[in-house]
Amino acid sequence: MAKDRTVNVALIGQKFMGKTHSNAWTQVRRFFEPPLRPVQHTICARHRDELEVFAAQWGWQNISTRWKDVVTNDQIGLVDIGVPNHLHAEMSIAALEAGRNVACEKPLARTLDEARDMLRAARKAKKQKTYVWYNYRRTPAVALAHQLVREGKIGKISHVRAYYLQDWAFDASVPLIWRFDKKIAGSGSHGDLNAHIIDMCRFVTGEEITEVIGAAMETFITERTLPSVGSAGGIAGGSKGSSKKGKVKVDDAVLAITRLSGGGLATFEATRFATGNQNKNGLEINGDKGAIRFNFERMNELEFYDATEERRTQGWHTVIVTHAGSHPYAEAWWPDAHIIGYEHSFTNQAYDMLLDLAGQKPTVPLPDFADAYETQRVLEAMSLAAKEKSAIKMSQVK
Amino acid sequence: MAKDRTVNVALIGQKFMGKTHSNAWTQVRRFFEPPLRPVQHTICARHRDELEVFAAQWGWQNISTRWKDVVTNDQIGLVDIGVPNHLHAEMSIAALEAGRNVACEKPLARTLDEARDMLRAARKAKKQKTYVWYNYRRTPAVALAHQLVREGKIGKISHVRAYYLQDWAFDASVPLIWRFDKKIAGSGSHGDLNAHIIDMCRFVTGEEITEVIGAAMETFITERTLPSVGSAGGIAGGSKGSSKKGKVKVDDAVLAITRLSGGGLATFEATRFATGNQNKNGLEINGDKGAIRFNFERMNELEFYDATEERRTQGWHTVIVTHAGSHPYAEAWWPDAHIIGYEHSFTNQAYDMLLDLAGQKPTVPLPDFADAYETQRVLEAMSLAAKEKSAIKMSQVK
Amino acid sequence: MAKDRTVNVALIGQKFMGKTHSNAWTQVRRFFEPPLRPVQHTICARHRDELEVFAAQWGWQNISTRWKDVVTNDQIGLVDIGVPNHLHAEMSIAALEAGRNVACEKPLARTLDEARDMLRAARKAKKQKTYVWYNYRRTPAVALAHQLVREGKIGKISHVRAYYLQDWAFDASVPLIWRFDKKIAGSGSHGDLNAHIIDMCRFVTGEEITEVIGAAMETFITERTLPSVGSAGGIAGGSKGSSKKGKVKVDDAVLAITRLSGGGLATFEATRFATGNQNKNGLEINGDKGAIRFNFERMNELEFYDATEERRTQGWHTVIVTHAGSHPYAEAWWPDAHIIGYEHSFTNQAYDMLLDLAGQKPTVPLPDFADAYETQRVLEAMSLAAKEKSAIKMSQVK
Amino acid sequence: MAKDRTVNVALIGQKFMGKTHSNAWTQVRRFFEPPLRPVQHTICARHRDELEVFAAQWGWQNISTRWKDVVTNDQIGLVDIGVPNHLHAEMSIAALEAGRNVACEKPLARTLDEARDMLRAARKAKKQKTYVWYNYRRTPAVALAHQLVREGKIGKISHVRAYYLQDWAFDASVPLIWRFDKKIAGSGSHGDLNAHIIDMCRFVTGEEITEVIGAAMETFITERTLPSVGSAGGIAGGSKGSSKKGKVKVDDAVLAITRLSGGGLATFEATRFATGNQNKNGLEINGDKGAIRFNFERMNELEFYDATEERRTQGWHTVIVTHAGSHPYAEAWWPDAHIIGYEHSFTNQAYDMLLDLAGQKPTVPLPDFADAYETQRVLEAMSLAAKEKSAIKMSQVK
Repeated sequence: MAKDRTVNVALIGQKFMGKTHSNAWTQVRRFFEPPLRPVQHTICARHRDELEVFAAQWGWQNISTRWKDVVTNDQIGLVDIGVPNHLHAEMSIAALEAGRNVACEKPLARTLDEARDMLRAARKAKKQKTYVWYNYRRTPAVALAHQLVREGKIGKISHVRAYYLQDWAFDASVPLIWRFDKKIAGSGSHGDLNAHIIDMCRFVTGEEITEVIGAAMETFITERTLPSVGSAGGIAGGSKGSSKKGKVKVDDAVLAITRLSGGGLATFEATRFATGNQNKNGLEINGDKGAIRFNFERMNELEFYDATEERRTQGWHTVIVTHAGSHPYAEAWWPDAHIIGYEHSFTNQAYDMLLDLAGQKPTVPLPDFADAYETQRVLEAMSLAAKEKSAIKMSQVK
Repeated sequence: MAKDRTVNVALIGQKFMGKTHSNAWTQVRRFFEPPLRPVQHTICARHRDELEVFAAQWGWQNISTRWKDVVTNDQIGLVDIGVPNHLHAEMSIAALEAGRNVACEKPLARTLDEARDMLRAARKAKKQKTYVWYNYRRTPAVALAHQLVREGKIGKISHVRAYYLQDWAFDASVPLIWRFDKKIAGSGSHGDLNAHIIDMCRFVTGEEITEVIGAAMETFITERTLPSVGSAGGIAGGSKGSSKKGKVKVDDAVLAITRLSGGGLATFEATRFATGNQNKNGLEINGDKGAIRFNFERMNELEFYDATEERRTQGWHTVIVTHAGSHPYAEAWWPDAHIIGYEHSFTNQAYDMLLDLAGQKPTVPLPDFADAYETQRVLEAMSLAAKEKSAIKMSQVK
Repeated sequence: MAKDRTVNVALIGQKFMGKTHSNAWTQVRRFFEPPLRPVQHTICARHRDELEVFAAQWGWQNISTRWKDVVTNDQIGLVDIGVPNHLHAEMSIAALEAGRNVACEKPLARTLDEARDMLRAARKAKKQKTYVWYNYRRTPAVALAHQLVREGKIGKISHVRAYYLQDWAFDASVPLIWRFDKKIAGSGSHGDLNAHIIDMCRFVTGEEITEVIGAAMETFITERTLPSVGSAGGIAGGSKGSSKKGKVKVDDAVLAITRLSGGGLATFEATRFATGNQNKNGLEINGDKGAIRFNFERMNELEFYDATEERRTQGWHTVIVTHAGSHPYAEAWWPDAHIIGYEHSFTNQAYDMLLDLAGQKPTVPLPDFADAYETQRVLEAMSLAAKEKSAIKMSQVK
Repeated sequence: MAKDRTVNVALIGQKFMGKTHSNAWTQVRRFFEPPLRPVQHTICARHRDELEVFAAQWGWQNISTRWKDVVTNDQIGLVDIGVPNHLHAEMSIAALEAGRNVACEKPLARTLDEARDMLRAARKAKKQKTYVWYNYRRTPAVALAHQLVREGKIGKISHVRAYYLQDWAFDASVPLIWRFDKKIAGSGSHGDLNAHIIDMCRFVTGEEITEVIGAAMETFITERTLPSVGSAGGIAGGSKGSSKKGKVKVDDAVLAITRLSGGGLATFEATRFATGNQNKNGLEINGDKGAIRFNFERMNELEFYDATEERRTQGWHTVIVTHAGSHPYAEAWWPDAHIIGYEHSFTNQAYDMLLDLAGQKPTVPLPDFADAYETQRVLEAMSLAAKEKSAIKMSQVK
């Protein structure tokens, strides 16, 4: 462990994602042996008092309330951006221009225009690395799915069903928190949930979406009370609303039917109105050799169907993806079937980024800005298709 | 049981649906006490030799190879049509004109034009009843779902996910059987599978589809060997192909995003290329009070989520729908959790048609030609939307 | 189908088992092509008026209220005994002595003494066949499990967990029906439920129980109201109790730990007090090559674990056992994943008995009186072990 | 967070349990706000070089290779014992005598005699607290189960089925590691796995075992290769065996049927030979009002059956126990259905011990030495019953 090589990390953000990233940076040294040791150099956010507590709790060495100082600090090797979407572009570009490596929360940006600017900055900054925290890629089951598809176990893909179902927004008393604020979030379930499953589909299948054949975006509750002061972490942050109301200008749900580059069809459904599903983020892939099913609410399990097996005992295998010798990341954690949880996906990503920064190959491919830009183009195409109520070819979306 | 009132039934067809219907007519008298006793008067099909065996096996009193004679026979009270789709219109109309009640297999017709002619004939024949064998309505779990929605347990519906996933057609060696023949079947998975789930969605939610926002229809395997002589029952009939090939002009898969009359969104996916799913016909409905999940591969179970329950023990209830005092049709069958199978849905429908013919209320509503015509309009709208790659309002489809 | 060879069947009993057997005899000719056609010659029971209705409903040609006449009628080829346990011995022995083949409901008898008499009669009647309706053997999943074990897919067995969980008796208002009456039933859950799982364990593993290491029998509710007049079919028959109470002298639950002949350990649990389980009849078997899980509430599924597979995708296979080319009995029924129900296990058994009577090999082995006598010995050993609170070797039980 | 009150913790052990405990002490300050801040004062183990790496990795301030120095160090407030079973008694007693609070890994001891000595020391040390790491109590689902039983939601209990199924020992090449060494471990699956489920049963039901009606202990593989040098953490430690063989004197599996103080029956099965189950630690409880099912492989789910609900929608609720406002410990972790893993149960326990040390009430009751002694008595009674092949009343075991 006592490696000499280190990288100084500065994290911007101390709410929900501040917590998942801080946890990742502290735990990665304990469960993995990364070639580069992350030093928790600086935590940056707006409120000094909260920051002090947070830094003590999570082991950050320095605090700052000025992100521009942080991203231009030459001691920092990696700027980690864990703030809401409206700040991704500005901060990432500044950090890249200052020579930093950047790990940015997803979705890459609020709009395709912003994303394009970020991509341009990333391309200009040739020596630096960019990463996007599409953490679900590093759920062991999803990483295994990626490997199985790569190795041809699924064969030619006919169908993908990707979905991300939550239900918290059905509660009309949830106030107009930042996730409902178009200026901050850019979109609703689209950037929050759909971005994840578009990334997962692209990552697992290795195919690109070539056309959005049809799409719908819907806002079920069009007015919510304005939030009172500063909400804490979590999805809906537990904040109470005031008596005033505001318009909800983002989507509550988005649905799309698409074409994949291999000729198959993929559907997407992201919604905050799917009663009975709190965080059901999943996908099913059918191919001519096999099939895969995954659902985050049972994140330690991958279901695999091998259509080439003897028919008599053919059936969905429920694979608990915790075996040290066999499953991605499992070596780092606990004995077989001593399952892991949500935050471990971030720790796994931290490990892979450290491998990559050290010039080694990550467990499975990491999304950089160029990769996340492709996801952003799909988001844009779906928005267009929903608006125009007709098919949009990806070639129309630059 | 020894009721005096009877109805003479004539069944046309002795393949897969001939068998399910024959079974329904024989079993209904044994498990139910219908107010009208069905007499298995005549079985009609093309091949006399096969018919003789079939009639003996299933207890049909007479056989005929001429359907026109059968439908005009005044002794017949109910003409039951269990033949492929291209014959539905001609036979139904002739039977209605001859004064018969008609029970026709689904889908109602190959095309909306045919369906309209059938509807017209049904309307003209005021005294007679029409029925369509959308048998899945009478799966106890689906009937219970219908009841729960009616009673407000689900509340205002945001989402419906309806799917019918099979995988037998992925086998490229399956020949061009009638299910792939546009002249006979009219369409592929669309009329075969999608019709069922459109009916189920309409039946369970009690809502109509008002717009098809986007749709896709796909043929993955565009050529298949021509079949050798007469295939038997079953989905793909076990028939072998010859060496000659023919074009497949029907869809292998169909997908659609739609709007419901209550303001929610409903998606449909019907495919014969979903590896790992042999007969996964299901739906999920989310409302502001609760949610429902159903999947035919576990047809004796309904999953129910009650969002008004104490949060602490809130969760999907897996309800085994076999309790005599509580669940539709359960009284007729076996003790609790001694589960029933596929064919029972047809027997349940036979019972409900006998109730209806006797002027009594069926367990849950029966689909007549007018009802099935609405499903046919939705099929048409989806085909149009797929073809034009744009949204189609149901008001555009007459 | 129109086979010349027939066998005249006489069925004694017209309640719950009368119905399942009648259904089996009528359906077997429709779904299978048995080498011997069963003729439903005579139905026999106590109440002539009920019998007339029943015979008409189920297609029995003759009725009788005198079972002795029936079993001595030389036209009868097979006497089928579907009455409560106290009549099994007397009727079976008389039928065997009169030269009949006999199919008797399970458990073979109330006591080991009775069972021994029956076995003796069976041995004396060399030319005749005996069968016991351990119908769960013919659930396709259980038959497949038997085949997999035979072929070595499970390997050397370490553990069997067999359970039969019901919960209807927890309702203290259920009266003292025949199932609670020691004179009629002989025992409670022991003969009713435990007999089934002992048979299943022996059948699937192919091993014998060599020792009962420990056992418990328990009556949770020791007094129940006496039933009013004649209850109908079903488990608890829906009958109402009177105001008088009687002692319950049979067990509500029975548990045992046993040793298998192959060196493994098997546990048994049969109870009518397992709230939340209505008919959960199942087993799990662990071996050094694989494992099997089955639960009747999902009777169309067998779970199979192949420990010799690549570890990476190793997991429980959920096999839907409905594939015509691959799974026992599936050819006879519906297309793949169009599932079957409880009564089909009886029809499958009727088919296998007809094969056996015609000198052909049944799908999987049939239990005869000698086989069922072994199960009875295990029941006896468990009762003894529970009573004496100590281990009992099977060699002590003759 | 920045609380003034602290407690200095010394941890003995740096293998598997050293890791879970270290993680608990570091994470507890980050996710909870304990009234007492744990200071990771000293880590103690045999090998200095390993210790240095471990201390750096996990944030321990001091290291020591002499546990006697550690337990007598007056700066230490809590001695945490995470070493194999043969050291529990000696270390605990020394620590108690030196005035320390003690948290000891389970099982309490190798033998009842050792356990009695420990209990005596705990009783003598009146001011100090003792704890045992029966961590599964603090799996949120198990804690919820405890609460539901306490509140009467399950009612009078008829049955408990407790099981802990693993399969790693079926691999005959696993060497004779400490878990197979009677001198170190005391027993095999008995102390390792059975102790956990006895504790869980007692904890969740609130009842005591009053009699062991029957029991079996079995060693399936009686010889294994002797291990080569020092194995690392994990269950079987990944260590390779040498060519020499040694006798296995501990059990591979243990089974028992018992009586509960409330009159119900409880069965226990702990085994390392249950192919297909890697860490399936669970229980089912049936009562006259409801029932509960739990299985650690799906540790974020509790299944609950409410027999008082409307029968029509009665069924097992699958409750995801992650809701901040409703479920034990959920507030500390992530948003709803962002699931947690194995190690979190230890962190939850660390939090509860800190509450208790500060004089506050833990979330659910903590097992102290007196409590764990009762579990040890049950272990002893089961061993006796297995040996004597007859029932043992708990009153016979002092």
